[in-house]
Amino acid sequence: MKGLFISFEGPDGAGKTTQIKMLEEYLKNKGYDVVLTREPGGTYISEQIRKVILDVSNENMNYMTEALLYAASRAQHVSEVIKSSIDEGKIVICDRFVDSSVVYQGIGRNLGIDTVEAINKFAIDGCMPHVTFLFKISPEEGIRRKSKQGEKDRLENEKIDFHKRVYKGYEELRDKHVDRIQEIDAEKTIEEIHEDIKKRIDDIL
Amino acid sequence: MKGLFISFEGPDGAGKTTQIKMLEEYLKNKGYDVVLTREPGGTYISEQIRKVILDVSNENMNYMTEALLYAASRAQHVSEVIKSSIDEGKIVICDRFVDSSVVYQGIGRNLGIDTVEAINKFAIDGCMPHVTFLFKISPEEGIRRKSKQGEKDRLENEKIDFHKRVYKGYEELRDKHVDRIQEIDAEKTIEEIHEDIKKRIDDIL
Repeated sequence: MKGLFISFEGPDGAGKTTQIKMLEEYLKNKGYDVVLTREPGGTYISEQIRKVILDVSNENMNYMTEALLYAASRAQHVSEVIKSSIDEGKIVICDRFVDSSVVYQGIGRNLGIDTVEAINKFAIDGCMPHVTFLFKISPEEGIRRKSKQGEKDRLENEKIDFHKRVYKGYEELRDKHVDRIQEIDAEKTIEEIHEDIKKRIDDIL
Repeated sequence: MKGLFISFEGPDGAGKTTQIKMLEEYLKNKGYDVVLTREPGGTYISEQIRKVILDVSNENMNYMTEALLYAASRAQHVSEVIKSSIDEGKIVICDRFVDSSVVYQGIGRNLGIDTVEAINKFAIDGCMPHVTFLFKISPEEGIRRKSKQGEKDRLENEKIDFHKRVYKGYEELRDKHVDRIQEIDAEKTIEEIHEDIKKRIDDIL
């Protein structure tokens, strides 16, 4: 039997990390073998690439460079962690995956959805999530929450306008992949959101 | 007036670096504004990517990850250094460019020429060298010379079989791009090779 591949998407500050940890706990208590991972990162090599991407001193990074680095990180992540875990019947929970690239680089950076999708086809090697939870939160609320958490990295320093385009980008993706992307109301309480996700996961399992 | 873009290609140990320095000196003495650069590298960001690629501890790097990292490094290099320098009328001399990726990843790594060319189309944004000097040296002689130079990096630890496929790969590329790629007999003396290159450059200028 093959495993399950779940990704979490949405703007910074939407509460994905908290919910991922709660879901991991829930699934482990049910006896499942859970692999928690994140993008960009997830392997020793990917983490090195992540450092280059998020380094505040690299603010003159070309948008195409950025998109190719995300794809490189993803190629390593898919081949080293995700594919093998799914093949072994595990449940893989990934904090951000290919949708983040399509939104942040394709729409947010104006590279175009087609270009970013074409680059990522090389990286993912046919490996897409079975289900994606998209955390819906207004751009203003997302920034407000994130700014409370302390130090900002390079991407978080971008302007409010960028966050608004990301928000619209995610809405477009949701409409394009209705079979895969499930929207989560991320302005509810932590417990309400967890209940919501548990129900949806139980339906799949 | 637009500048000139020259790349140097060939296996490790062929003597490219020595010849590049001699050509730089020659052109500077003639009054040209010369920009010397290399791949992977050439910018602050590209050098960081280069470190990840060549780090000996990253030997489990997926071949697609490697190809995407080279492309990312190149995208930054082209946008930050090469394009602007050519536009300003300078002579850009680049130690390895897109041909290295096509040979080392496409043929040497079995990713396929078409795949590596498609990835690099995103990176180079239409910017190809006006002339490429391909240093021809047998794989055995290349390895012999390189092993004298001390510490080996990850790529240089690959087997002799890999070097032979790279050699054949460069021969294929030379046949494919006869208008751009000029072959240099790299088993001649340093002075003979320099004279050969000077003549060819003078013809172009």
